[in-house]
Amino acid sequence: MMVASTVLLGITSCNNGSKSPEGNTAQTKTAETMENGVPKISEFPIGDENKGFEQYFTGKSWLAPLTSNKQLDLPMFNVTFEPGCINSWHSHSEGQILIGVGGTGYVQERGKPAVRIEPGVVVEIAPNVEHWHGAAPDSWFSHIAVNPKPETNKNTWLEPVSKEDYAAATKVK
Amino acid sequence: MMVASTVLLGITSCNNGSKSPEGNTAQTKTAETMENGVPKISEFPIGDENKGFEQYFTGKSWLAPLTSNKQLDLPMFNVTFEPGCINSWHSHSEGQILIGVGGTGYVQERGKPAVRIEPGVVVEIAPNVEHWHGAAPDSWFSHIAVNPKPETNKNTWLEPVSKEDYAAATKVK
Repeated sequence: MMVASTVLLGITSCNNGSKSPEGNTAQTKTAETMENGVPKISEFPIGDENKGFEQYFTGKSWLAPLTSNKQLDLPMFNVTFEPGCINSWHSHSEGQILIGVGGTGYVQERGKPAVRIEPGVVVEIAPNVEHWHGAAPDSWFSHIAVNPKPETNKNTWLEPVSKEDYAAATKVK
Repeated sequence: MMVASTVLLGITSCNNGSKSPEGNTAQTKTAETMENGVPKISEFPIGDENKGFEQYFTGKSWLAPLTSNKQLDLPMFNVTFEPGCINSWHSHSEGQILIGVGGTGYVQERGKPAVRIEPGVVVEIAPNVEHWHGAAPDSWFSHIAVNPKPETNKNTWLEPVSKEDYAAATKVK
């Protein structure tokens, strides 16, 4: 499946261009609903495997940039996590906004109950608040991550989430 | 259908909370898939009818705030347009990002071809670029609108889009 980024006369449009024609065999549908080894859980592009940050993730994740206009300067990425994959405890000095677009995941701030994220759920994480996010144990998960004020928004990466803490957090339905 | 905004210990989570239980009658399903008179085209909340801006729209639209954290200060709204409803030519002094989440719509910059927006399509509109956006003639449409730098991001509203220009623009498939 092709990921198409179209720059059209000043409007930057990013789209995975995926549509499922009717009447295919089950086998063809399975092939069509995979992108870069990821099952189709939203209409947003999957992008490449997130090798640059893999040291901070417990499993495989994928990263698709959705914005590029330097005048707007508002980085947005679709981040996709395989089931059970989450990132380490971390914080952003200018905060972050997560927009659930596919599957089921969680975000948890240090010392607080986890919040379940499904498509249509938007979560704001305030500056310098330690948190982690990622997939449910049994579900692929995609969220758009919006990182405001990129010039000054620094990530601080901390320790991995313990298996016990992840298990306890993801009991939240 | 209830729109639930949950402020949970510092994480602000906004969700329409809508799920369709199995085994309902068709009649019940129809009722469940409407929110504030709008058919269900995404998992994002619909919000209230957009009376504050109706003078700049050709028909009915709805506005649901998705963010509220003052430390992040990044306004995002889910905007829903009834079929054929678009806004007037306008510009934003700090630009705007549109994220397609439901149905089919269009955005057009002055003097350029329209760009079709469906779920998964992200469009960046540079500062001070005159444009309009809204629904296709035959489809409801929802996009998330992100307005960066709200303190200085001023809207300039101009004339309505002519029927001829809308008809020509929306021939783009």
